[in-house]
Amino acid sequence: MKSNLLSNIYNPADLRLLKEEQLTEVSQELRQFIIDVVSVKEGHLGASLGVVELTIALHYVFNTPEDLLVWDVGHQAYGHKILTERRESFDTNRQLHGISGFPKRSESIYDTFGVGHSSTSISAALGMAIASNLKGDFEKQHIAVIGDASIASGMAFEGLNHAGVTDANLLVILNDNSIGIDPSVGALKKYLTAVKEGKNPKKNNMIKSLNFDYSGPIDGNDLPTLITELNRLKKIKGPKFLHIVTTKGKGLQQAEENQVKYHAPGKFDASTGEIHIKSEENLPPKYQDVFGLTILDLAKKNEKVIGITPAMPSGSSLKFMMDELPERAFDVGIAEQHAVTLAAGMATQGMIVYCNIYSTFLQRAYDQVIHDVALQNLPVIFCLDRAGLVGEDGATHHGVFDIAYLRAIPNMIIYAPINEIELQNILYTAQLGLDHPIAIRYPRGRGVLPNWEVENFRHYEKIEIGPAKYLKAGTKVAVLSTGTIGNNIIEALKECSNSGAFAHYSFSFIKPLDINALHNIFSTFENIITIEDGVKNGGFGSAVLEYAAANNFKNKVEILGIPDEFIEHGSVSELQHLCKIDVKSLINLFSNGSK
Amino acid sequence: MKSNLLSNIYNPADLRLLKEEQLTEVSQELRQFIIDVVSVKEGHLGASLGVVELTIALHYVFNTPEDLLVWDVGHQAYGHKILTERRESFDTNRQLHGISGFPKRSESIYDTFGVGHSSTSISAALGMAIASNLKGDFEKQHIAVIGDASIASGMAFEGLNHAGVTDANLLVILNDNSIGIDPSVGALKKYLTAVKEGKNPKKNNMIKSLNFDYSGPIDGNDLPTLITELNRLKKIKGPKFLHIVTTKGKGLQQAEENQVKYHAPGKFDASTGEIHIKSEENLPPKYQDVFGLTILDLAKKNEKVIGITPAMPSGSSLKFMMDELPERAFDVGIAEQHAVTLAAGMATQGMIVYCNIYSTFLQRAYDQVIHDVALQNLPVIFCLDRAGLVGEDGATHHGVFDIAYLRAIPNMIIYAPINEIELQNILYTAQLGLDHPIAIRYPRGRGVLPNWEVENFRHYEKIEIGPAKYLKAGTKVAVLSTGTIGNNIIEALKECSNSGAFAHYSFSFIKPLDINALHNIFSTFENIITIEDGVKNGGFGSAVLEYAAANNFKNKVEILGIPDEFIEHGSVSELQHLCKIDVKSLINLFSNGSK
Repeated sequence: MKSNLLSNIYNPADLRLLKEEQLTEVSQELRQFIIDVVSVKEGHLGASLGVVELTIALHYVFNTPEDLLVWDVGHQAYGHKILTERRESFDTNRQLHGISGFPKRSESIYDTFGVGHSSTSISAALGMAIASNLKGDFEKQHIAVIGDASIASGMAFEGLNHAGVTDANLLVILNDNSIGIDPSVGALKKYLTAVKEGKNPKKNNMIKSLNFDYSGPIDGNDLPTLITELNRLKKIKGPKFLHIVTTKGKGLQQAEENQVKYHAPGKFDASTGEIHIKSEENLPPKYQDVFGLTILDLAKKNEKVIGITPAMPSGSSLKFMMDELPERAFDVGIAEQHAVTLAAGMATQGMIVYCNIYSTFLQRAYDQVIHDVALQNLPVIFCLDRAGLVGEDGATHHGVFDIAYLRAIPNMIIYAPINEIELQNILYTAQLGLDHPIAIRYPRGRGVLPNWEVENFRHYEKIEIGPAKYLKAGTKVAVLSTGTIGNNIIEALKECSNSGAFAHYSFSFIKPLDINALHNIFSTFENIITIEDGVKNGGFGSAVLEYAAANNFKNKVEILGIPDEFIEHGSVSELQHLCKIDVKSLINLFSNGSK
Repeated sequence: MKSNLLSNIYNPADLRLLKEEQLTEVSQELRQFIIDVVSVKEGHLGASLGVVELTIALHYVFNTPEDLLVWDVGHQAYGHKILTERRESFDTNRQLHGISGFPKRSESIYDTFGVGHSSTSISAALGMAIASNLKGDFEKQHIAVIGDASIASGMAFEGLNHAGVTDANLLVILNDNSIGIDPSVGALKKYLTAVKEGKNPKKNNMIKSLNFDYSGPIDGNDLPTLITELNRLKKIKGPKFLHIVTTKGKGLQQAEENQVKYHAPGKFDASTGEIHIKSEENLPPKYQDVFGLTILDLAKKNEKVIGITPAMPSGSSLKFMMDELPERAFDVGIAEQHAVTLAAGMATQGMIVYCNIYSTFLQRAYDQVIHDVALQNLPVIFCLDRAGLVGEDGATHHGVFDIAYLRAIPNMIIYAPINEIELQNILYTAQLGLDHPIAIRYPRGRGVLPNWEVENFRHYEKIEIGPAKYLKAGTKVAVLSTGTIGNNIIEALKECSNSGAFAHYSFSFIKPLDINALHNIFSTFENIITIEDGVKNGGFGSAVLEYAAANNFKNKVEILGIPDEFIEHGSVSELQHLCKIDVKSLINLFSNGSK
């Protein structure tokens, strides 16, 4: 690194020793530092590049960490991390035992609130601000930085709606770059665009309607303007709102021009911006693409098919359908609650609705799944992407609770395909008409069938609801897997000299459970092992135990899965190893375990 | 009933045969009919009285059930039910096997969407409207009627934000009466009040900012005005918004003057409005009041104590604290997501936050409990009111999923007191400082200790985290209960001639489980029964099975609790009977069950 000023900044106190005119140089160095590291180590690029000036201005004007700064989502907080004692550890970003890709309280006193999911910052900062008031500290500043995609989520509105009637010392900064991971959508975005373009008279101001002291829009990539405005706002008491306009990917031409791709571009050339393209030949498809290609194909054949995503068209690959059949594929923005009940409303009119939500984000709509879908037994098809351990995004994003929280809900079918074919076929089966809502959970990343698209795509087979699959015979122990973690069992058993002792059953249906298969298994095998990539508390293994208890079986059952603790970030296989469900751990278990 | 016109209206087709000038008489009869029935049969009064004119106008102007009408929450839908084929069954309202207190799809084709929880109507109606467009039906009308308390919830904003960029044939009617169950709060309410008072120039219109065709405010208790306006709006395509102002409790003087009390007044005199006061002498206190009195007392002694309720100050009895210590007791409106993350923000600053949310409504904030509280291990104290079966409110409101969905979350302590003393003492213990968040679940209604306030209130004892209680010795079967359902065990065992066979343990701590007690129990008793007033899938019983499996115990375990189906409305004891966890069922079980 050829940085000069930056290398002398350990934390914001050092930054504040600089003269204001030196900050532009700091911004150039910080931007280059982010590019240099992320180009090699990977991570979220565009968001942090866009807020380099804001990051510097905030730490320069405010007295962090005494003043409390909350970053919404946290994709944009790399500059913040680098300026707050983590420049030297920044190259461990998102790696096992390295720093987290998101602000995290246990990592730094500058990270006042852990984030990852969107739209929490206003509520959190307001809570801090009210606490300060109650403690008699009226000088402390509380700042929430939130993007235009995140502020459109209902939770952010709830925070604004409360803040507006308090005297809390809260500054909400809207970082308006017209994009989340994908371009922002919705009426609020349209309104903000009109404001930016000067088409909307300032007197018609939605934020002022909520009782905020509104200022802006100003150029958020212009340091002197930012610093002047933040200094002004610092002196104003009560809830304040600053609207800044920034460019995502600022400073790297390709990242500015292709903001979706450069949100998290993988490895790239730090000087040219060129993304290093990995050969995808002979690789199995991503489960996301299996979903995206299949729903598009089904939608072409059945005009009742609808797709919904809350702000993840690229991530979920619903994009394929949005491009070809835009009238039936909806990106509703970061609005999981709305997405689910919208789907329910459509289902009442006979539409066949695939509501694709990352497992971790469906937590946001748990009540709607229960109250609006399952209670009415509407056959909404939930596609739970990113189920199981997601890897580098870490604790905020693992989709490990879904089996437990969905299994409690009456009327739900829960299905976890073991591979691309099962995923395709359950998507096909679902639009033939089910009597119940179904949740189909599948992981991030690639499947196991390199030739799926050539050999299997569009060759649909209807799946009978319920039955487990008997994958492998064995003499002593029955292994019951659910979902793609079953492939670890297959692989592990290939490596075990005593594999003959182990029978393998794949329970793609977690609910309803295949009672006949279980009866057969419990009647045949004294020892049973269950495995899932979800929490063990209340998960698939528990369902098996409930069956056994209800039927008075006394077999020994060992449950493998995610233990009762939050799992941090790292590669999926590293994290599976921590949970003892990776292939190597399973080989060990099996090698020692066939009594 | 002396009604004349009303008795000839079986459904809206009959209503539409009347002349417009006859509708005022219908409104008088309908209002009286509601008063007459609810005064005797109990139920939600004020909301339905307020929308008598709107209900008639909607069914008169629109072609229901072809046009689709969605009532938000549904407290206000009694008039709708009476006009739509349920006049004669209306006196079974909220009773076992009677009609539901809320609109319900399986009950009537006029009930287009089941409701109960708030703020779902816009999303649902938008889904229907988009479906109609896709089916080429551009004439069908889709109407969401939503109150000013409900529209302030984030989910409603998400629906508006999406609807505003569609061409959906959607009419949102804001029924603005400045009150939910308790008076509305927040910046939006303040804004709406300004609009109503003419203080806010119409050009500064928040709803117009979201791209809606806005009209109003108009007098929603004035039939001719309503009919004229609805007829006008019927001809306008695209998203429309009508702001009407009504009086909750309209037509019954006491109900207008005391809107909180007359939301659901119990039995009252139909002519005078006088509420029939039941003697409360010698009755145990409500758990709500144990909470309300205790948190007020604790807050007086500890200035870090804070109370939060999302729109249930009366229902939760946080009102006591709001009246005496308003600066530390917050009603944030129907905003469960915000409530939880606000609590988390406060907790980061060392405040001791009691976040009181009905069990069924915490489903709305499941992600915030996981992501903002538990992941950061912030010691927020969740008070889950209305846990278990709630009775007449029925399927939408039972708090039966909480044990299962909370048990999956790392770091959580889950506690279900068996009585008023344990509730008081866990509330006391929580503010002494816990290392983890805690969820305290307790039911609606009265406890078991008539002298609690005199004998126990303020006599606090610290509860050690973890241990179960050994309530009764027994020789053959161990009964493990959690929470107040344990009182059914106590009662049942008093009635059983063979009660000596049954030992009774109270596991107030569902998490962490008392491993020592379980070891002892499983080592001593061949037969074990668990009982809970939550779903059996993944609940307390499952936790016991997980313990047994992990420790290689092979005892017979029978799990009692809520089966895997939605439980409808009825009295709590009737519903407990359906689930076989009432005293009588337990007596039968025990009498036949001590092998």
